Amino acid sequence: FVNGKICKDPKVVKPEDFFFQGLNKPGSLSNPLGSNVTQVNVNQIPGLNTLGISLARIDFAPYGLNPPHTHPRATEILVVLEGTLLVGFVTSNPAMNMKNRLFTKVLNPGDVFVFPQGLIHFQFNNGKTNAVAIASLSSQNPGVITIANAVFGSDPPISPAVLTKAFQVDNNVIKYLQSQFWWDNNYP
Amino acid sequence: FVNGKICKDPKVVKPEDFFFQGLNKPGSLSNPLGSNVTQVNVNQIPGLNTLGISLARIDFAPYGLNPPHTHPRATEILVVLEGTLLVGFVTSNPAMNMKNRLFTKVLNPGDVFVFPQGLIHFQFNNGKTNAVAIASLSSQNPGVITIANAVFGSDPPISPAVLTKAFQVDNNVIKYLQSQFWWDNNYP
Amino acid sequence: FVNGKICKDPKVVKPEDFFFQGLNKPGSLSNPLGSNVTQVNVNQIPGLNTLGISLARIDFAPYGLNPPHTHPRATEILVVLEGTLLVGFVTSNPAMNMKNRLFTKVLNPGDVFVFPQGLIHFQFNNGKTNAVAIASLSSQNPGVITIANAVFGSDPPISPAVLTKAFQVDNNVIKYLQSQFWWDNNYP
Amino acid sequence: FVNGKICKDPKVVKPEDFFFQGLNKPGSLSNPLGSNVTQVNVNQIPGLNTLGISLARIDFAPYGLNPPHTHPRATEILVVLEGTLLVGFVTSNPAMNMKNRLFTKVLNPGDVFVFPQGLIHFQFNNGKTNAVAIASLSSQNPGVITIANAVFGSDPPISPAVLTKAFQVDNNVIKYLQSQFWWDNNYP
Amino acid sequence: FVNGKICKDPKVVKPEDFFFQGLNKPGSLSNPLGSNVTQVNVNQIPGLNTLGISLARIDFAPYGLNPPHTHPRATEILVVLEGTLLVGFVTSNPAMNMKNRLFTKVLNPGDVFVFPQGLIHFQFNNGKTNAVAIASLSSQNPGVITIANAVFGSDPPISPAVLTKAFQVDNNVIKYLQSQFWWDNNYP
Amino acid sequence: FVNGKICKDPKVVKPEDFFFQGLNKPGSLSNPLGSNVTQVNVNQIPGLNTLGISLARIDFAPYGLNPPHTHPRATEILVVLEGTLLVGFVTSNPAMNMKNRLFTKVLNPGDVFVFPQGLIHFQFNNGKTNAVAIASLSSQNPGVITIANAVFGSDPPISPAVLTKAFQVDNNVIKYLQSQFWWDNNYP
Repeated sequence: FVNGKICKDPKVVKPEDFFFQGLNKPGSLSNPLGSNVTQVNVNQIPGLNTLGISLARIDFAPYGLNPPHTHPRATEILVVLEGTLLVGFVTSNPAMNMKNRLFTKVLNPGDVFVFPQGLIHFQFNNGKTNAVAIASLSSQNPGVITIANAVFGSDPPISPAVLTKAFQVDNNVIKYLQSQFWWDNNYP
Repeated sequence: FVNGKICKDPKVVKPEDFFFQGLNKPGSLSNPLGSNVTQVNVNQIPGLNTLGISLARIDFAPYGLNPPHTHPRATEILVVLEGTLLVGFVTSNPAMNMKNRLFTKVLNPGDVFVFPQGLIHFQFNNGKTNAVAIASLSSQNPGVITIANAVFGSDPPISPAVLTKAFQVDNNVIKYLQSQFWWDNNYP
Repeated sequence: FVNGKICKDPKVVKPEDFFFQGLNKPGSLSNPLGSNVTQVNVNQIPGLNTLGISLARIDFAPYGLNPPHTHPRATEILVVLEGTLLVGFVTSNPAMNMKNRLFTKVLNPGDVFVFPQGLIHFQFNNGKTNAVAIASLSSQNPGVITIANAVFGSDPPISPAVLTKAFQVDNNVIKYLQSQFWWDNNYP
Repeated sequence: FVNGKICKDPKVVKPEDFFFQGLNKPGSLSNPLGSNVTQVNVNQIPGLNTLGISLARIDFAPYGLNPPHTHPRATEILVVLEGTLLVGFVTSNPAMNMKNRLFTKVLNPGDVFVFPQGLIHFQFNNGKTNAVAIASLSSQNPGVITIANAVFGSDPPISPAVLTKAFQVDNNVIKYLQSQFWWDNNYP
Repeated sequence: FVNGKICKDPKVVKPEDFFFQGLNKPGSLSNPLGSNVTQVNVNQIPGLNTLGISLARIDFAPYGLNPPHTHPRATEILVVLEGTLLVGFVTSNPAMNMKNRLFTKVLNPGDVFVFPQGLIHFQFNNGKTNAVAIASLSSQNPGVITIANAVFGSDPPISPAVLTKAFQVDNNVIKYLQSQFWWDNNYP
Repeated sequence: FVNGKICKDPKVVKPEDFFFQGLNKPGSLSNPLGSNVTQVNVNQIPGLNTLGISLARIDFAPYGLNPPHTHPRATEILVVLEGTLLVGFVTSNPAMNMKNRLFTKVLNPGDVFVFPQGLIHFQFNNGKTNAVAIASLSSQNPGVITIANAVFGSDPPISPAVLTKAFQVDNNVIKYLQSQFWWDNNYP
């Protein structure tokens, strides 16, 4: 065991321990977000353990969204293969009385964009056709935190007293937001 | 220059470069959240550069809140000095069709709680008196991302098309959330 | 097992794995040094494993001393809660024919001081009342080496031939120093 | 300056500092190897500095080869977009009297393979049509060492006395190998 | 277990776990290369685990060679104890249309040379008497990749189609090179 | 500038930037300790910057001592070339009411010993002839803290109130110890 994963005896390691099949197939887009993330990390490729990198294919229906999320342990670099994506990340809190800055860009096939470690980011298909991107992350086990689910859909829920104050809105809005939970398709 | 900060010649370094004064004074609580964070990191103590640690004092009015936020580069360990705090963090996305878990606890003076790196967490004064805590972070420059401000108050704003889909709510709710921005007092 | 500590299945982790109680209680001061360190590290909070931070409460009787020591794996940042402390650290060896420099400061409540990784440092209550400080360390398992005990109280003892030459004093002084061993209260 | 690269003031950073255009265009294949690597690292995207990741597009003519090489500072993960690739890496020296093992695999579109840090590896288009792959590396500045060029084409050349003994062949073979140098298209 | 090595209970660790005997004895030089590497790493000294350093003694017959190789996880620093060594390393690929540079030097007793992590390097005894060097590596488990064996002597062999194109030579030369494999004496 | 050291343009780097001459010459032993350390680190070899390793030659007169010291940023591995050395290191503080353990060993030529990062250690020539050792450290800039000088010879001196309590001895002993300062020959 290394990092909580089984570490094979080098003598019985085989090429298949460094191999994954199927990233050419689109993920299912029949979900509320119209997007799908196919992860290829240490859970799919055991040979990635300790090597500090992983991959993902992201599919988007028209107007599909990979919603605002963070990777607590990784930077992401993404290249668009098909379609058009509006992407962005928000900087961490700046000096007092300054707003967090949004860095955004419309990406076409062949365009590359970087989402620095731990920052909130999203990818949105603002075109009329499907879009596909390949993303790579600087950890074999990057983690994903979907903001909407973590804040409004946790188990147990965060107390409404916390959320009404955090977002400075009334309780009905928080209840509405908490009622909209769906099973996310961006899991490790 | 090391890490973008000026690095003094060792011959002219003095004790003051490792020193900060004033963490005994409560921060101002006259703001919508009823909380205040006084940071002591590499911006206040130049001698912290490269040393991987920093400190903060957090003050809470009754029902004051340090709202859901993340530190992209640090774990936080907190000890309560006065009052009672309801604290919690939400885990990163678990396996498919599982909800993110909320780990929560009510803390009294002398209680210590850990918020692992990059996870969304909050501290809420659920008592009738002021509360005070000391938090320490595993980076000299941990960064702070206040979720509400980063998602609903960035400059420029995130497109409503992204936010309505991300939270699965209608446009009026997003407009309401975006209109509630306030200057945050948790800055680096 | 990760880092030689048991690593729980994420499904059975609970809030108590990130929690410690009792840092509001002063440690016993009835010892030759008149000080006491209450550690809160990975041995007390299993959830700290791999997270790179820990905490301690340090109590001082009047003229109590946290004696010269090092942390082989951590920088320390300290804030005074009550009383007055004379603190200091000594730099590593400078250029030839230069003396190691002592950086020292008198701290009052709310004052913060940094002790860089691996350097010999101490905290001394030079006031007439008890003093209390919170220290945070940049490792979940920082280690402590009390200089007096390690040099003059090890088991087995360091050979007097080594110590007389190291300190350039005669054998009686070394014997005297070696006879003064006490059980230290600063253990991991 | 951080890591020898200019580090911009956060106030003047813009989205273009995290952006690169053109990875949809095949690189020129009119060279002796019939392959081309288009790098997207910190030299092309300044915002990648310190973030620990980079990307590359690799094009192959039929029977084109990305020749045996190492990345001294990175693991590589590769996904095939078009065509068929024979890929492989060689393990580091095993126990005495054992041979270095070759891990090899034929990859089709959607197949992913991992090349661990520092190991000699290659990708060969063993099909009759062009092939395209996206590779990601766990460093913003991974470095490339093409074995043939480094061993037989350095400036100045490695002494024939070294190479004849290293490969246990006669001087004519080494001269022949040294005379075959070509400008490599896999540069940082 | 830490890093796949057994990690002893601190209570039963003994001085012998930090000790190795026999680096004063020359290794056998009766092999085709006329050199021998005696490694002292975590496989010989279990106490080195996680400590990031190891040692080796290298013996050379007259005209003996430690052939071009890399350490995927370590920088090497070498000091000559006896004899004269021609040493060198080759830089990673520079800008387009530039050759990899060879940094070379003749070393006499007391001379020290550094071989940066992951770069191809060699040491050749160009004198008429035996030579001895001590090398230290910045990893407890640095790994060794002997270029000739990894490229021309792997099990199974790399396809001749790959090697003829990689070195731009005809098949007979590759067959000749592949037939010259010998058991290497530089193993971990 | 990287790590506060000038970082050369790769085009003007030359072999001499990785080279040091003179480790075959004994250091001067005419000093109170009868020992001498010749360091070869980033201050002597600029090319070592960021590479995480350095070297030293240590000479000992009969009964010469490299006195108890620590390296705040490095593990040390040592091999004896000539003579006999009594070496040892002291563990960090163990559980309550346990003594720090001394790990000690007599080393003869060819013997290797490891001193883990940050622990107090010494080497003593307990033979009648000179001794020589080569030590390697896991940092290009390991730092040295000679305990006697740092505790009893700093500038300004540590207050006697601190030292009498730390060592539980009377003021005369501390004055005697403080009066014995000598210029140390183990500097970076």
